[in-house]
Amino acid sequence: MVKVTVWNENRHEQKNPVVKEIYPQGIHGAIAGFLGDKGLDVKTATLDEPEHGLSDEVLSNTDVLVWWGHLAHHEVADEIVDKVHQRVLDGMGLIILHSGHFSKIFKKLMGTSCDLKWREADDKERIWVVDPSHPIVDGLGETIELEKEEMYGEHFDIPAPDQLVFVSWFEGGEVFRSGCTYQRGNGRIFYFRPGHETYPTYYHPDIQKVITNAVKWAQPVKRNRPVYGNAKPLEAISVK
Amino acid sequence: MVKVTVWNENRHEQKNPVVKEIYPQGIHGAIAGFLGDKGLDVKTATLDEPEHGLSDEVLSNTDVLVWWGHLAHHEVADEIVDKVHQRVLDGMGLIILHSGHFSKIFKKLMGTSCDLKWREADDKERIWVVDPSHPIVDGLGETIELEKEEMYGEHFDIPAPDQLVFVSWFEGGEVFRSGCTYQRGNGRIFYFRPGHETYPTYYHPDIQKVITNAVKWAQPVKRNRPVYGNAKPLEAISVK
Amino acid sequence: MVKVTVWNENRHEQKNPVVKEIYPQGIHGAIAGFLGDKGLDVKTATLDEPEHGLSDEVLSNTDVLVWWGHLAHHEVADEIVDKVHQRVLDGMGLIILHSGHFSKIFKKLMGTSCDLKWREADDKERIWVVDPSHPIVDGLGETIELEKEEMYGEHFDIPAPDQLVFVSWFEGGEVFRSGCTYQRGNGRIFYFRPGHETYPTYYHPDIQKVITNAVKWAQPVKRNRPVYGNAKPLEAISVK
Amino acid sequence: MVKVTVWNENRHEQKNPVVKEIYPQGIHGAIAGFLGDKGLDVKTATLDEPEHGLSDEVLSNTDVLVWWGHLAHHEVADEIVDKVHQRVLDGMGLIILHSGHFSKIFKKLMGTSCDLKWREADDKERIWVVDPSHPIVDGLGETIELEKEEMYGEHFDIPAPDQLVFVSWFEGGEVFRSGCTYQRGNGRIFYFRPGHETYPTYYHPDIQKVITNAVKWAQPVKRNRPVYGNAKPLEAISVK
Repeated sequence: MVKVTVWNENRHEQKNPVVKEIYPQGIHGAIAGFLGDKGLDVKTATLDEPEHGLSDEVLSNTDVLVWWGHLAHHEVADEIVDKVHQRVLDGMGLIILHSGHFSKIFKKLMGTSCDLKWREADDKERIWVVDPSHPIVDGLGETIELEKEEMYGEHFDIPAPDQLVFVSWFEGGEVFRSGCTYQRGNGRIFYFRPGHETYPTYYHPDIQKVITNAVKWAQPVKRNRPVYGNAKPLEAISVK
Repeated sequence: MVKVTVWNENRHEQKNPVVKEIYPQGIHGAIAGFLGDKGLDVKTATLDEPEHGLSDEVLSNTDVLVWWGHLAHHEVADEIVDKVHQRVLDGMGLIILHSGHFSKIFKKLMGTSCDLKWREADDKERIWVVDPSHPIVDGLGETIELEKEEMYGEHFDIPAPDQLVFVSWFEGGEVFRSGCTYQRGNGRIFYFRPGHETYPTYYHPDIQKVITNAVKWAQPVKRNRPVYGNAKPLEAISVK
Repeated sequence: MVKVTVWNENRHEQKNPVVKEIYPQGIHGAIAGFLGDKGLDVKTATLDEPEHGLSDEVLSNTDVLVWWGHLAHHEVADEIVDKVHQRVLDGMGLIILHSGHFSKIFKKLMGTSCDLKWREADDKERIWVVDPSHPIVDGLGETIELEKEEMYGEHFDIPAPDQLVFVSWFEGGEVFRSGCTYQRGNGRIFYFRPGHETYPTYYHPDIQKVITNAVKWAQPVKRNRPVYGNAKPLEAISVK
Repeated sequence: MVKVTVWNENRHEQKNPVVKEIYPQGIHGAIAGFLGDKGLDVKTATLDEPEHGLSDEVLSNTDVLVWWGHLAHHEVADEIVDKVHQRVLDGMGLIILHSGHFSKIFKKLMGTSCDLKWREADDKERIWVVDPSHPIVDGLGETIELEKEEMYGEHFDIPAPDQLVFVSWFEGGEVFRSGCTYQRGNGRIFYFRPGHETYPTYYHPDIQKVITNAVKWAQPVKRNRPVYGNAKPLEAISVK
């Protein structure tokens, strides 16, 4: 069974009654809830726990880490970011949600600024499937419509995705590469755009399907990490 | 359960006692055998059956089609090729093995000549994993070694693979992109190089693992194919 | 100097006075005009000429072929399509415009249906640059706005582009991968969406910049095509 | 004219008489020499200069930076690495040679460990062109042969290249993705494997062709960097 840890900075929920009302158990609680309902083995972790809830033991027992952060990216300790980074290279799956585009871990894995355009103006968002063969779109229709969401617009300063799965249309005139896969080391990464804290986006059945599919897609292969460093020849080398 | 059809032209086995001895049930029989042992629902089909064993009923009941051909690519009817092509675009997975690089169906899906260098000279082949995060390499070590195989060498005239999984080293001095994934329409395709008919390659446990992993990876998503053609607007268009 | 041939089926211009008025020299004439102004060596060819204006001599003297077709894709002779296909694999650049998505040559090179959603309803189109590092966007701003255009919408049934350069936003609610590069054999291909015959799109300075940049980007490398077929070993093969 | 800065840590040349003899003007001198001969505007910079020779003025006057480092990656100041990183995202081209795979700047841009297998044993290396359509292979044959080189072997822990141009065969039994392009922000990056300091690799005419082609390919587009941050709507947003 896939072991999932849902990480959330869990700050908006403490400060903003609107967010608290939408997500009384926190965004992590909502996400852990529907993933658990699908039969996955789910735990949560939050910023204010010791080691942000991401001790070596937690990380080594996590197949796929789901990440939501926004206000407090800078409070995530570099030492923890380095450990998460190493775990991804070792094979752990990583699902980065929404404002996690600016998290230290995503920027470290991408190597770019991960910057974008944004607007909080109740834009309608329509997410189009552009790769109908991808396991992450299993069970979806052609689009996912969100009546109101924060807008994220291009240019999104990321490496060209290994696979581009979704593109969003926004009412205010922008587009966005909303679903992007990356393979880094032995790990698989999925960035998924929707999920501003003041909207009930994570209760949308199709959003839940995407995140569930992504978690399953991102689970590690079972094999040893490659060997690096000095290597003896496998074949004879001629004396020249 | 994944429904697999293993297709083979099954001609070398009839003509060449060496091949017959290695594969008494045909190459299709050997492949169907190990896939069945892994619990997949496997059938076979061969060139000389009516409709090459690929009737509409067979195709519509196939999740993943495995393809081995060589001598008789030109004998495969264009009408059947067109049906297989359509089924791939509709979502059926397709695993093309070895000399299938020159099959009508692979060339039609790739849009290039699919040509390459080759040599039958008992080269040693060492297949290196270059994407350790891919589901197709689950359970493998760093390399697969084949004591003797036909050589296939670059330039291999294919589109750049969506994902490059394996690269082969050959004793005679060549390299080859040996494991390549493509997504076309709703279907997933995997090309895998090894498997010349005069060697017992399909009995090698790692080769069996790769083909089994590939079949699982290539199974279709469950959703409707996208709608094409004339489309009503989803939002009001201003009169200009 | 880059030798460009601009090919047009040139039928709308004969039948539809609206099109004739916008493009009195034909769409090919308009495109050849601005490419010539940029100092390129430009010729034109049209469907109703012998061999569609694409004789062996013309093709072998073409570095980059620009293609516009719509009504009469089926009238393009398969023999000519095969020759163009071979020339692309041999290194000729190919720029496919707008409704050329359904041309025989594009479908043959892509291996997919190349189908899409469409609507003639005066949608506003806003083309966003999603790859700001690409030579094809040299000199452009963040977007190209077209007040009225035909809508093309996802899903666009193409292979994932080697490089995705542009994504379009449409007023009626759709998005589209509008600028896509592909490398096939020795040739480079660029698909560019805009250019419905009833709008003066090819007079837009930014559209002209894109096509000019694309032609320069697509010019062939100067080298021999790779050698295929039976190959002698480059290193000694041990006797086993 | 393309303005190139060739950066070298220039330490082996001071310590090892073998290297000093092969490259009496330093590796940077050799590379600057042949690039200058091709008519490019070339300067050099080295680790032990103030700011490693990479002042703001130098960087802002560099279109393409060529990088060779090995022993002293850790001595490159993080502040300078951050400036080079920013310049790449702003559009500067970057050519990373050989042991530069482990430089801070390459690891920061890639987001992975960039680790690999290696061996100093006079392996023969044969570099195969796998993308014959790429501008970087202009003027080359099918392979580049180097009688003796350091071996670098897979797995090379990099993101899947945007374009894979070369794959190396090594006498001792390994393969390596030797020529890899990446587009990051507004900048283009090329990693090219050969060039161990104890071999005269940078005098090989084909190696010089590749580096010259890469410099030309990597020159920046002329346009403003995209605008990021809060964005006003371009279209009216309905009140809901």
